[in-house]
Amino acid sequence: MTRSSVRHDPMPAQPSMDGIAVLQPLGLAAVRLSDGFWVERQQVNRNAAIASGRQRLEVAGNLENLTRAAGHADPDAYRGPYFMDSDVYKWLEAVAWEFAREPGDELRRDFDEIATIVAAAQQSDGYLNSYVQVTGSPRYADLAFGHELYCYGHLLQAAVAARRAFGDNRLWQVALNVGDHLVRTFAGDGGNRGIDGHPIIEMALVELARESDDRRYAELARTFVERRGYNTLRAHGRHPSYFADRVPVRESTTVEGHAVRAVYLAAGATDVVLEGLDDAGYFAALRTQWQNMVAAKTYVTGGLGSRWDGEAFGDPYELPPDVAYCETCAAIGSVQWSWRMLLATGEVQYADLIERTLFNGMLAGVSLDGDEFFYVNALQLRSDVVSDDHRHPVNGRRGWFDVACCPPNVMRTLASLGGYVATRTADGVQVHQYASGTIDAGTARLRVQTAYPWDDVVDIEVEEPGDREFEIAVRIPAWCASATVTVDEDEHPVSPGYHRVRRQWRAGEHLRVRLPQPARVTVGHPRADAVRGCVAIERGPLVYCVEQVDHPGLAIDDLEFRSLGAVERVEELLGGIDVVRFTAAAHGSDQDVAASAVPFFAWANRGAAPMRVWLPLAQVLP
Amino acid sequence: MTRSSVRHDPMPAQPSMDGIAVLQPLGLAAVRLSDGFWVERQQVNRNAAIASGRQRLEVAGNLENLTRAAGHADPDAYRGPYFMDSDVYKWLEAVAWEFAREPGDELRRDFDEIATIVAAAQQSDGYLNSYVQVTGSPRYADLAFGHELYCYGHLLQAAVAARRAFGDNRLWQVALNVGDHLVRTFAGDGGNRGIDGHPIIEMALVELARESDDRRYAELARTFVERRGYNTLRAHGRHPSYFADRVPVRESTTVEGHAVRAVYLAAGATDVVLEGLDDAGYFAALRTQWQNMVAAKTYVTGGLGSRWDGEAFGDPYELPPDVAYCETCAAIGSVQWSWRMLLATGEVQYADLIERTLFNGMLAGVSLDGDEFFYVNALQLRSDVVSDDHRHPVNGRRGWFDVACCPPNVMRTLASLGGYVATRTADGVQVHQYASGTIDAGTARLRVQTAYPWDDVVDIEVEEPGDREFEIAVRIPAWCASATVTVDEDEHPVSPGYHRVRRQWRAGEHLRVRLPQPARVTVGHPRADAVRGCVAIERGPLVYCVEQVDHPGLAIDDLEFRSLGAVERVEELLGGIDVVRFTAAAHGSDQDVAASAVPFFAWANRGAAPMRVWLPLAQVLP
Repeated sequence: MTRSSVRHDPMPAQPSMDGIAVLQPLGLAAVRLSDGFWVERQQVNRNAAIASGRQRLEVAGNLENLTRAAGHADPDAYRGPYFMDSDVYKWLEAVAWEFAREPGDELRRDFDEIATIVAAAQQSDGYLNSYVQVTGSPRYADLAFGHELYCYGHLLQAAVAARRAFGDNRLWQVALNVGDHLVRTFAGDGGNRGIDGHPIIEMALVELARESDDRRYAELARTFVERRGYNTLRAHGRHPSYFADRVPVRESTTVEGHAVRAVYLAAGATDVVLEGLDDAGYFAALRTQWQNMVAAKTYVTGGLGSRWDGEAFGDPYELPPDVAYCETCAAIGSVQWSWRMLLATGEVQYADLIERTLFNGMLAGVSLDGDEFFYVNALQLRSDVVSDDHRHPVNGRRGWFDVACCPPNVMRTLASLGGYVATRTADGVQVHQYASGTIDAGTARLRVQTAYPWDDVVDIEVEEPGDREFEIAVRIPAWCASATVTVDEDEHPVSPGYHRVRRQWRAGEHLRVRLPQPARVTVGHPRADAVRGCVAIERGPLVYCVEQVDHPGLAIDDLEFRSLGAVERVEELLGGIDVVRFTAAAHGSDQDVAASAVPFFAWANRGAAPMRVWLPLAQVLP
Repeated sequence: MTRSSVRHDPMPAQPSMDGIAVLQPLGLAAVRLSDGFWVERQQVNRNAAIASGRQRLEVAGNLENLTRAAGHADPDAYRGPYFMDSDVYKWLEAVAWEFAREPGDELRRDFDEIATIVAAAQQSDGYLNSYVQVTGSPRYADLAFGHELYCYGHLLQAAVAARRAFGDNRLWQVALNVGDHLVRTFAGDGGNRGIDGHPIIEMALVELARESDDRRYAELARTFVERRGYNTLRAHGRHPSYFADRVPVRESTTVEGHAVRAVYLAAGATDVVLEGLDDAGYFAALRTQWQNMVAAKTYVTGGLGSRWDGEAFGDPYELPPDVAYCETCAAIGSVQWSWRMLLATGEVQYADLIERTLFNGMLAGVSLDGDEFFYVNALQLRSDVVSDDHRHPVNGRRGWFDVACCPPNVMRTLASLGGYVATRTADGVQVHQYASGTIDAGTARLRVQTAYPWDDVVDIEVEEPGDREFEIAVRIPAWCASATVTVDEDEHPVSPGYHRVRRQWRAGEHLRVRLPQPARVTVGHPRADAVRGCVAIERGPLVYCVEQVDHPGLAIDDLEFRSLGAVERVEELLGGIDVVRFTAAAHGSDQDVAASAVPFFAWANRGAAPMRVWLPLAQVLP
């Protein structure tokens, strides 16, 4: 079979040009971030996290599993949970995006060596799963928990990334073999009619279709989406809702069950929509699901998943800060879904949630040093909490986990972050996220300079204006009530949403966005019982929290909020942050005490001591 | 071996006379309840629940498992989870207590027939477990989850109950064989050094020791308590804390992990203390654990367990009403533990918690018709909640469960309830719970008449005064701020705690307790974030709740409490209850609306629609 190879700009989730997307991504070749907040995180991600990933995979046994998979079965030799392969693929994907961001011989060498191990493990018919091969277990015998298609999903995503990043052909061939194997095995009525307990294959097959220009893969993705919701997955005490299998996608009005599974499925269904394969009414349902998720099942940090039990979404407005699960992977899945909805619609709400989630729910998942990770991102850690579960925030961030989904997921997300900054249309560029660097939209080239989120100003200079009129759209975040835009020295107020300036730009012209970021307090929805009578402190895109370490002699468990104070830059604290001062009181006391809040993403970098995002107000009884 | 047979008054948990108990129980022969609130529940329990239990055990396969256990192994023939035997034993225990309460030929016949099946299943060395025997699995191969000793625990409790209730010798011999088998297998350094993942064997062995007068059983119970807390139990993704195995009993300052396991272990350790076997400092630790449980880990209903994940206690003050687990069995375990602490100390706090738990956390677990049960007793059901988990309150009470621990646990508790009413000392009687009937304390005989909890007055008449001075102690509940006691026409105010009247009583004299029960509002602890800004309505020992069905046109999710109104008797509602009227408002509205609350125990008897115990106050922002 010959395939036309459609090389895309390196970036996850690139809709085909013949799909329904309103916006087209600008990937890591078009958007080059130069410095500032996110680039600092990316450098740390490269040097501390990605660089040590290979050793992590060796120590944990992932690579050994794959090496053994090429040989004879030995039931006792397999190490770790079923889905160990997926960590390898996620890390390979991170390596690929990181190479696209900034090439490096070591990255390429590591990638190729491990891709060679993966290729050697693949069986002649395309099947590949180290658990099944090492233990000699039957294929696809436990689709609910076996994670075989889940591992494929990450493999395909890694292969697509490497294909886009450096024209890889090694893992790419493995991926095509997997894709063909899946089509033979699962497509059509005569084959296996099952679905995997953990979605991701849907997104991955669509990406494989995009990159290979082979539509069969996208159609199989649609088939998997279509099969879901008929209560076929029920195992190990888990009900269909856990597997996002209780209600068909087109009939579902909200997200439920295991949060990562739910948003991965939603992202995959959105990919199916983006490829123009939505003959089932998915898109209207997905819009409703997303709205209801944001209205009633999303934390102020963008975190998803209220429950440890089943790592799951809660009921509407069930959003406890203390026992929030908010798996780092769920925040990442949320960004992936919102990104696809943004491409499909061009609507600002999706970019707003991406910003909130990246700066808070996702970023708290990794230490400032870049090499330790939270699995669970609660919005409160009480005092007197003990736990022998290493996922619990009280035990601090960890370098790796026995279930190690989160660390390499953060790595691939940070490495590919530039791809979420801007998009293009035929005659325009849309700047969704603010970071210093250049944006090459084809029709024009922009230089962005900003110290965002620490500074209010984003300066966009038109370096190469192109030869015709085009539109620059800048996102005014929903949190910003007093934004202004300056063009030609004319500063005028603008409202949240995309502010669009269409003209024949000249080289050297500036569009300056000012996004004033006073500290503010946020009140929860009145049905959100867990935060009733509380406020959260926010500033710009950042959610703040109070850490016990900043309040010696004052138990923050008993802290009550009184009034906001000044915002103060403290360079020597937590890598340089803006601290929000506020006045508080101990419960039952009339005496004002000085208190301070730090960005939520930076918490637990001075030990995992009590912390809270939501601060009670003094209670008034009737 | 010959054993002296010490027949006790039928009642669970009867400390030996040579132990340290301050109070001695008065069992079902000494305390005869005649009518009123609890007797109505007991009649329903007998006629609707216990009477159908045998059929439940036949349909679910429990009896088939035991019958097969006597034959050859057939791995595919076993039905249900590992611990199916325990449901049989719990039901047999209920039958025994019910027989003691009110004899019946059918009860006795059922008991004997099933005891015969059990006896036939026992192996020659005393081992007995239908899962292991039917499937041919190895014995004690998975102590963490196999529940073998857990099943024994319930078997021993049933046998002790039947021994006390009607001098049973059939199940009793099985129990002695089990006890001896356990001593041979687990006692001493040379034997199996393991412990069962689910405590209860500790309580059960102590009871076997009491009834058989064979101290080896109690010493083995102490051994099991002593072995716990060294992180030996870790399996199926569960950590030692889940199994109450993270910290030794004597070092632990609180309860944690799986709530039923934790309180069963604590009750068992208290039994070890009661038998004078506490050479390890358990008792001081148990007192601290109980205090901390009540202070920070107990719901207003007496319910225990904040988390679905691991059916577990939460962190201190983690007490969300909506996702509360509050397993019915945990409430029952709490009563068992508090009862033993009460016997050990004579302190009123334990009887107070028993009352709160029986009337609310336990009683909500069973329908007014007596034949359907809640596994989970949340204090709030939101609107728009769906769940495919049959334990979830939104799916209503159920006749039985695949894990059917709760229904027969309720049955045995209601049948033996008279045993928790009163105790005696050498020259006194202590009335802990109020219900009409007679109390024969040996030294004296009392007649109690009351419509409690619907009426304020408890009248205690001395029917047979005995020939010397003795003390009547009556419990003034902590919730009662304006109680009075009348003796000899002299009514005087009394404070919460035991009010004691010691004198030479004359036949026909009365001690009248008045416990005024105006409706009241309760505010949560300031650290209990989930109920901040809310009040709960209580009246006497009853916690109230608001049900959607009583508020057409008003979404109780948005209800705010304003002020208490009248208490009104409504005979035609929910079997006859006192309704608490109050004034409320919809969130954001200034308009008063009339609302009403019903006892929490009676909720979901008109469908499982939205309900809430905690009612928000209008929120006031600074």
